[in-house]
Amino acid sequence: MTDSNSLEGLIQALRRLPGVGVKSASRMAFHLMQHDREGAQTLSRALQHAVGSVKHCERCHTFTEGDLCSTCLDPRRDASKLCVVETPADQSAVERTGAYKGLYFVLMGKLSPLDGIGPHDIGLKKLFDRASDGTVREVILATNFTAEGEATAHVIGEALKARGLQTTRLARGVPVGSELEYVDLGTIAHALVDRR
Amino acid sequence: MTDSNSLEGLIQALRRLPGVGVKSASRMAFHLMQHDREGAQTLSRALQHAVGSVKHCERCHTFTEGDLCSTCLDPRRDASKLCVVETPADQSAVERTGAYKGLYFVLMGKLSPLDGIGPHDIGLKKLFDRASDGTVREVILATNFTAEGEATAHVIGEALKARGLQTTRLARGVPVGSELEYVDLGTIAHALVDRR
Repeated sequence: MTDSNSLEGLIQALRRLPGVGVKSASRMAFHLMQHDREGAQTLSRALQHAVGSVKHCERCHTFTEGDLCSTCLDPRRDASKLCVVETPADQSAVERTGAYKGLYFVLMGKLSPLDGIGPHDIGLKKLFDRASDGTVREVILATNFTAEGEATAHVIGEALKARGLQTTRLARGVPVGSELEYVDLGTIAHALVDRR
Repeated sequence: MTDSNSLEGLIQALRRLPGVGVKSASRMAFHLMQHDREGAQTLSRALQHAVGSVKHCERCHTFTEGDLCSTCLDPRRDASKLCVVETPADQSAVERTGAYKGLYFVLMGKLSPLDGIGPHDIGLKKLFDRASDGTVREVILATNFTAEGEATAHVIGEALKARGLQTTRLARGVPVGSELEYVDLGTIAHALVDRR
């Protein structure tokens, strides 16, 4: 719809970003070309740089630029605790709370039989080896509270229990700052059962 | 917050896109690194390519890759009509209607005295020269229906009237497909005045 193939190409490329449809992509492309060509170049370089240097930590699989991430390398972390999350973004969220001093294991996604994603695809074998290394005393299952995340936590929990390891799950309950009236009933029911 | 400077740099660069805050930017960056590195490279190249090849048409200022855009070069367009819009995105919207066969003039923005943007900054001198070239019979003011767009249309309209040129403004009225109950009162008032 524009008079420029490279502008069309830019709009198509921007649509690959999550949550960006054709209208947002056009708006972004027009904005960059009209008002922020320097920003476009910065973004182009940042993408190239990230693709070239961001890889996965060999121990926990989170994003890092070295062989091991700074969390795995930090001797002050409590190696007896292992927190299992679905993605590097989830790991980053747990880390930002400042409430956790153990180590992490980032799954390569979640179990999803409908999409053909089984235990092998998300690296469970490696997790079981890691959890059985003799140092880990507690595995904290912090997968998402979605159907697939719950199923993943269940499968991991059962497998680790069979190996005689202690597993815990993040507490379910009422989010901080929320009013009961607006919290969904399943959450309130869980908060009642897990009351302390 | 992540263990990678280049990932942080990518998040910062993505925040320069309009409508993208720190949460969306993180989500985009994690998505690209985790699931779509090819998309990241495609986007990087598309940005580089667009910055290098997209320029402004010498006649109407819209985006193009040659000296003149395909609309200005098209001999079938009606050169007696000149549609004035604020941005290439607006020009693209008018063009997509298929209801206009004349030529365009894309302003370099809109008059905005508070931001120090005056007639010179948006290329009004060039517009007045173009409108007075003897070929143009009607100037259609299609700036936005915001305070600044209306002021811009008013200033251009007065200046062209003083030069003896006919100007028209896009009709104000009820949007197609809308229910009166939900249309704002100013729009209904205008639709009443301009009824036909």
